[in-house]
Amino acid sequence: MSAAEVLTTLQGRGETLAVAESLTGGLLAAEFVAVPGASVVFRGGMVAYATDLKAALLDVPPPLLNSHGPVDPSVAAAMAAGARERCDADWAAATTGVAGPDPQGGQPVGRVYVAVAGPLPEHAAVRELTLPGDRSEVRAGAVEAAVTLLAEVLATTITSR
Amino acid sequence: MSAAEVLTTLQGRGETLAVAESLTGGLLAAEFVAVPGASVVFRGGMVAYATDLKAALLDVPPPLLNSHGPVDPSVAAAMAAGARERCDADWAAATTGVAGPDPQGGQPVGRVYVAVAGPLPEHAAVRELTLPGDRSEVRAGAVEAAVTLLAEVLATTITSR
Repeated sequence: MSAAEVLTTLQGRGETLAVAESLTGGLLAAEFVAVPGASVVFRGGMVAYATDLKAALLDVPPPLLNSHGPVDPSVAAAMAAGARERCDADWAAATTGVAGPDPQGGQPVGRVYVAVAGPLPEHAAVRELTLPGDRSEVRAGAVEAAVTLLAEVLATTITSR
Repeated sequence: MSAAEVLTTLQGRGETLAVAESLTGGLLAAEFVAVPGASVVFRGGMVAYATDLKAALLDVPPPLLNSHGPVDPSVAAAMAAGARERCDADWAAATTGVAGPDPQGGQPVGRVYVAVAGPLPEHAAVRELTLPGDRSEVRAGAVEAAVTLLAEVLATTITSR
């Protein structure tokens, strides 16, 4: 399912979307905004590139960041939950990972976590990926993985309203 | 001056950067994050695509949004100031405008405002553009204009520290 199809699905359900990004640095938001009419569903998001901004902008608990580092499944989940809350959206998708060229926080280049948060706690989902390629390819792969995870969660949940 | 050159200039000055985006929807952040080593300078930003998020995420005064609409030079300036403050950065660049396909808030397709905020009030700058092309071309032009305005302001200001 493409970003456009995700937006169409959400529009049909009367639900909205936000994003929280680290390594993708705006590319996930851009994927949705590229779709004409996106504003009906897509509300916005945060690019929390610096680790401390994951706490300041997205309410990721600082102890979690300190103990696990920024490239972590729990951090990805907290980023999605924070974007959903701060952007007053029904759904949110998040990315964190290592685009390279250097490893980060004990994680290898290509290690990516994508997460989804929805209206109910059981909508939460996180996926770990190890993506090949250079900095640009890892980021593009992370965007695709986030859209795919969101599409899969939407396909298996009924509307919340 | 390219995004990479802006980052190099800021790194040399020991200063940091944030962004606030509306129509560009993450593309301005992505332009900076695409540069390896960006994390030394680039802290993050907000995509305030929905008008109310320009207030909630970037502290744009709601009366300003209500009276001028989201595509406005004062709104662009307030977005830059808000991103600078919320992301705890020395500099911020912002974009707001109409990518199309439809006009918005009394403004034609292609009307774009880019803004810069810096450490001192006199660093503030706003530029109005009327960009040709389709949705994708208007957004790309807005990214380029924001980077150019930031580069120009940096070239004419001495370091603040």
